[in-house]
Amino acid sequence: MSFQRPHIEAMQGYVPGEQPQTTSVIKLNTNENPYPPSPLVQAALSQVDIATLRRYPPPTAKEFREVAATLHQVAPENIIPTNGGDELLRLVMTTFVGSEDIIAVTKPSYSLYPVLAEVQNTSLAEIELNDDWSMPDDFAQQLNTLGAKLAIVVNPHAPTGSFLSTEYLSALAAEFKGVLLIDEAYVDFIDPDKHYDSSPLINKHDNIILLRTLSKGYSLAGLRFGYGIGPESLISPMMFKTRDSYNTDLIAQKLATAALQSVAYAAETWDKVRASRATLTAQLEKLGLHTHPSQTNFLLCDIPENLGALALYEALKAQNILVRYFDQDRLRHRLRISVGTESENAALVDTLAALVSEAE
Amino acid sequence: MSFQRPHIEAMQGYVPGEQPQTTSVIKLNTNENPYPPSPLVQAALSQVDIATLRRYPPPTAKEFREVAATLHQVAPENIIPTNGGDELLRLVMTTFVGSEDIIAVTKPSYSLYPVLAEVQNTSLAEIELNDDWSMPDDFAQQLNTLGAKLAIVVNPHAPTGSFLSTEYLSALAAEFKGVLLIDEAYVDFIDPDKHYDSSPLINKHDNIILLRTLSKGYSLAGLRFGYGIGPESLISPMMFKTRDSYNTDLIAQKLATAALQSVAYAAETWDKVRASRATLTAQLEKLGLHTHPSQTNFLLCDIPENLGALALYEALKAQNILVRYFDQDRLRHRLRISVGTESENAALVDTLAALVSEAE
Repeated sequence: MSFQRPHIEAMQGYVPGEQPQTTSVIKLNTNENPYPPSPLVQAALSQVDIATLRRYPPPTAKEFREVAATLHQVAPENIIPTNGGDELLRLVMTTFVGSEDIIAVTKPSYSLYPVLAEVQNTSLAEIELNDDWSMPDDFAQQLNTLGAKLAIVVNPHAPTGSFLSTEYLSALAAEFKGVLLIDEAYVDFIDPDKHYDSSPLINKHDNIILLRTLSKGYSLAGLRFGYGIGPESLISPMMFKTRDSYNTDLIAQKLATAALQSVAYAAETWDKVRASRATLTAQLEKLGLHTHPSQTNFLLCDIPENLGALALYEALKAQNILVRYFDQDRLRHRLRISVGTESENAALVDTLAALVSEAE
Repeated sequence: MSFQRPHIEAMQGYVPGEQPQTTSVIKLNTNENPYPPSPLVQAALSQVDIATLRRYPPPTAKEFREVAATLHQVAPENIIPTNGGDELLRLVMTTFVGSEDIIAVTKPSYSLYPVLAEVQNTSLAEIELNDDWSMPDDFAQQLNTLGAKLAIVVNPHAPTGSFLSTEYLSALAAEFKGVLLIDEAYVDFIDPDKHYDSSPLINKHDNIILLRTLSKGYSLAGLRFGYGIGPESLISPMMFKTRDSYNTDLIAQKLATAALQSVAYAAETWDKVRASRATLTAQLEKLGLHTHPSQTNFLLCDIPENLGALALYEALKAQNILVRYFDQDRLRHRLRISVGTESENAALVDTLAALVSEAE
């Protein structure tokens, strides 16, 4: 006999991207920032006195909240620090969505959402993106017709790289009757000329939560640190009711704070990634590999039939280059490729060029 | 209008013990180990290269699982590493208990359990301990009559310090029809002559999960690291379905592994705490402050009416000594006092002696 709840017994778990613990692999499969974290993070680490670990950490991560609030020009009460962005996703579901309710996402989208909805035993409605990956015109109406309690929109979008403007999101929040969670995991890689600035939206709308993570922009995927930005009415119940009481540890708090304090360093890495993204896009195009315009640190790349996406993924892996293949509708003939360092990208392009010419 | 689920809207959050971020307070309120973590933990910290934080951590904390498995003479598949013991409590509820089910705990018990049950929207049955804090004879029958899906037993018990033998727990697991979670947060402070050894129980019973934490025994409350030990049938669904996919970070994994690898160092601190516990018990008794026999690193102390528990808590706080007062039935005339260093205990006893003689 099983002690598991029936819906847990029936479900499959999330399968994360491969995480080989070796440095010999060119790892372009889970969208890490290719550059190391800020030297200030190293300095913060060096200053950790392990004797201080004897005590519980600051329960509300006060210093981090203040630094994040300053960065986003909001109040500390508008910030909830979390154990990675994933924890915020779970907390939003736990706090605002019951098992009788509906969560709506776009299709395709981040493959963790359906798993979290299953854990929560909640129905998930998937709304198809248009052929060009843009949002359906009647997206807000569809959400309201469904009676969705929560909608999760990724911006810029994973796994396509598409971008929605601040104005679009503001109009969506105004029309949608539920909680709108905007997953901004890749926000730091948006071109500055897009003038994207979502933080002020949380003072205009009572139903918006922004998800931020230090995993990508700040090169700290290994640290597990994210945060939510939202009106206090949405942040406070997660902060003081549904969150595990000490959800972030002392070292992570200190390093995350140092990372935000050295945002200028991180911004230089974002510039480099954007420049490499443009170069890589052009190089792939030259090889006949079309990519969708991306505002993230990855490219969703169409793979011609003679190569085959799965076969190409495997051929690259055989040469120690990892990219991401999704066995999903509309993605089976594509690969998602993280933008690496210039030398990683060059190695990728060389390898792809050889594989393309072999297949001809 | 509120977007919160009705039962979340209605609930109060958990109120953790006070965590002043200063060293001028004698902090005997949240049961930290009074001694610093092992030098091996410091060494592990010094070896962290922040460049490695760029990538995601090992998703299953493989190395930690192996080291913990060796320590407990079980298989790595019997171990789930968690972001503090609190995360394990939540995962057990999420995985094994539905909102229509019942969780049973003893009364009194760890004050977080009712809060977690409320978040989960699950009924909580509280079974009164006997006058001497021992378990009711018919505890297992009561659990089965209730139809409890999950029972949480703290051993040694918080906030009383009481102890249950391995044999008692084995018999309980055999009789109880649901999942038995044994919260062993304070297990390291049990006297060796009790010969407590619960790990083998997970191979005898399919319904036992042991909760361990590095917060107390290993002086790492600030690190947020705990783990569960159980049969693979119970561990696996939490590990691969309901857990956040990267629930423990790279630094915490490395430091936690180092802590378990230097268990001999930690064991010396346990010896010191046990010796201090005996001394402090005798000193409090001399002051007319009776304590219940404790197998933990704290004492539950009866406070005479002329002093008053709340008044004494406040008088101690005014002199920079923090202890724990619980505004709960059967606890309102008691204080829970963590065993500190010899000098902290001496300061406490001196201050108490003065307050006791003032009240006479």
